[in-house]
Amino acid sequence: MPESRVATDPADWVCPLPLRETKRIVLGHGGGGVLSEELIENLFLPAFGGAAGAPRDSALVDIAGGRIALTTDSYVVQPLFFPGGNIGDLAVNGTVNDLACSGAQPLALTAGFILEEGLDLDVLGAVAETMGRAAATAGVGIVTGDTKVVARGGADQLFVNTAGIGVVPAGVHVGPERARVGDHIIVSGNLGEHGVAIMSVREGIDFGTVVTTDSAPLHRLVAAMLATAGAGVHALRDPTRGGLVAAVVEIARAASVGIELDQAAIPVPETVSSACSFLGLDPLQVANEGKMVAFIDPAHSEAVLDAMRSRPEGANAAIIGRVVAEHPGLVVGRTPFGTTQVIERQLGEQLPRIC
Amino acid sequence: MPESRVATDPADWVCPLPLRETKRIVLGHGGGGVLSEELIENLFLPAFGGAAGAPRDSALVDIAGGRIALTTDSYVVQPLFFPGGNIGDLAVNGTVNDLACSGAQPLALTAGFILEEGLDLDVLGAVAETMGRAAATAGVGIVTGDTKVVARGGADQLFVNTAGIGVVPAGVHVGPERARVGDHIIVSGNLGEHGVAIMSVREGIDFGTVVTTDSAPLHRLVAAMLATAGAGVHALRDPTRGGLVAAVVEIARAASVGIELDQAAIPVPETVSSACSFLGLDPLQVANEGKMVAFIDPAHSEAVLDAMRSRPEGANAAIIGRVVAEHPGLVVGRTPFGTTQVIERQLGEQLPRIC
Repeated sequence: MPESRVATDPADWVCPLPLRETKRIVLGHGGGGVLSEELIENLFLPAFGGAAGAPRDSALVDIAGGRIALTTDSYVVQPLFFPGGNIGDLAVNGTVNDLACSGAQPLALTAGFILEEGLDLDVLGAVAETMGRAAATAGVGIVTGDTKVVARGGADQLFVNTAGIGVVPAGVHVGPERARVGDHIIVSGNLGEHGVAIMSVREGIDFGTVVTTDSAPLHRLVAAMLATAGAGVHALRDPTRGGLVAAVVEIARAASVGIELDQAAIPVPETVSSACSFLGLDPLQVANEGKMVAFIDPAHSEAVLDAMRSRPEGANAAIIGRVVAEHPGLVVGRTPFGTTQVIERQLGEQLPRIC
Repeated sequence: MPESRVATDPADWVCPLPLRETKRIVLGHGGGGVLSEELIENLFLPAFGGAAGAPRDSALVDIAGGRIALTTDSYVVQPLFFPGGNIGDLAVNGTVNDLACSGAQPLALTAGFILEEGLDLDVLGAVAETMGRAAATAGVGIVTGDTKVVARGGADQLFVNTAGIGVVPAGVHVGPERARVGDHIIVSGNLGEHGVAIMSVREGIDFGTVVTTDSAPLHRLVAAMLATAGAGVHALRDPTRGGLVAAVVEIARAASVGIELDQAAIPVPETVSSACSFLGLDPLQVANEGKMVAFIDPAHSEAVLDAMRSRPEGANAAIIGRVVAEHPGLVVGRTPFGTTQVIERQLGEQLPRIC
């Protein structure tokens, strides 16, 4: 479910206020002086929708007591702009989704930029504006940030780190070690779109149809699942780097259970499977940025599936397998022909710099 | 107050378990597959002292209700290793100190790495071990993390982002906008050491004496100040990038007050001032990584000074100026000759990649 309004081209961005005469990042933008302040006031704060309050070293967030989820992710994707999105919405949605995987609702995000000297300010502006828009869509604030600039050649254009905090509602206990024998495994929709969107731009390959990133925030989907099944939601994982396979292998190992996937039930669009076969990639190991894999008590799985399908980000949700007592720590795929095969993670990665 | 045990040379690090045959980072270490897992289990978890539990997307932290401080900082310092420390303790202490500036006691840290393909694992290991040791010294856990790898030439060796959360005790209200006319301004010790330590290595200059970084966690110093003066502690700032000048100018602007500094009272070691004069730098604009500037109600300032001096990280604390009603937003320095001059921030920065 790509965001419809994110910038996929930096020319879409309009600087709210002129940033001196320069159109490019200079080392001084990272120096903590006047140029740093101008960048914050004229670019980041307008983009993030933040009040231009007193500069603080930390943001303050009021919370009721309870369990706080805390996460971090750095984003180094190349190219920065791709069909359906850019590094900015990826960085917001990715961290929101990491919180959602703990059953948490997001409370606040941080943004840490590492910029290469000479970066076009339009690029930074478009990314920041997209981040602000994605944060608004997710209903979470980017409350504090940091910018460093390294000399030309010291970094590849722009890296961004987002960290996030969220609140885990009372009674919610979701974790990879909680998967249980008998659980149904649900995936929230079509797999492989993000990876193929990146590769199509990077390799300049035309697959006939443009595949767009699936980048989307999933915390409301998770809230709907928890509202339906409560403690029947055992484990959640967003299948990003390493794709579905990495997600289920990690849970099989964390819970010491076996996993059986019905390969024919896994939703992979025709565009993705043909692109992957052209590129020599396994679509089940390609990154997704708006999908969730859920391990659900079988007594609740049909109701959870209905709840997921009632939301746009879960419209193509499907039960794709189950947790079994056999072969703990291993994932087995059942082919359409009835045979089975062990599914293993790749050693490294198929696609560097995918997120 | 440099940490005495941090690695200043990667050769000091010993890998706890062999990481396959390679001694260098490969792209697959960032791929979310088996190599990523091996890096986490064999390098980061031993270094950070974490339990090798189930991999999670977020860490969970139990907290009582209240105000949470949230902060982030990326570190890109070059060289990675310098007298008295390395990028690792800088990244831990810097984020602890950003929390402390809000009056918060640190609760948990995250660590996000961006690594260049080909990085020596001994370098990463030494940095991670130093981070773990600095976190233990500060009494805070590194609870979650992320690693990305970019191709050779796409980054300069190693960047690290740390985000942190902390709890602001009830009744504590510290912020740059709370500085009041009459406040005494206290600095916790000698200025300029971190910047000179970096420059001495970078420029290969021998100043006769080795100046070591002052990198140190300051939350216990802040706790002692708050225990002494309570609400009499108005504003705190760690003078990192941009040094003392950037810190006080930002507070003068945030609180719309004037600031007068007694230049003769500002503690700058002879080694720092001679190095700065050789390099053409203003020691008051050079970064510090273990110092605090505090704005204190004058009724409490002597007691706070005593409390600070009773701790090693505040041994050289001094009152260096006061808040005045005149010239709001401006900082004025009183020279030893009785004349005054407006002190302004530099436009960009004197020293790129200082932290």
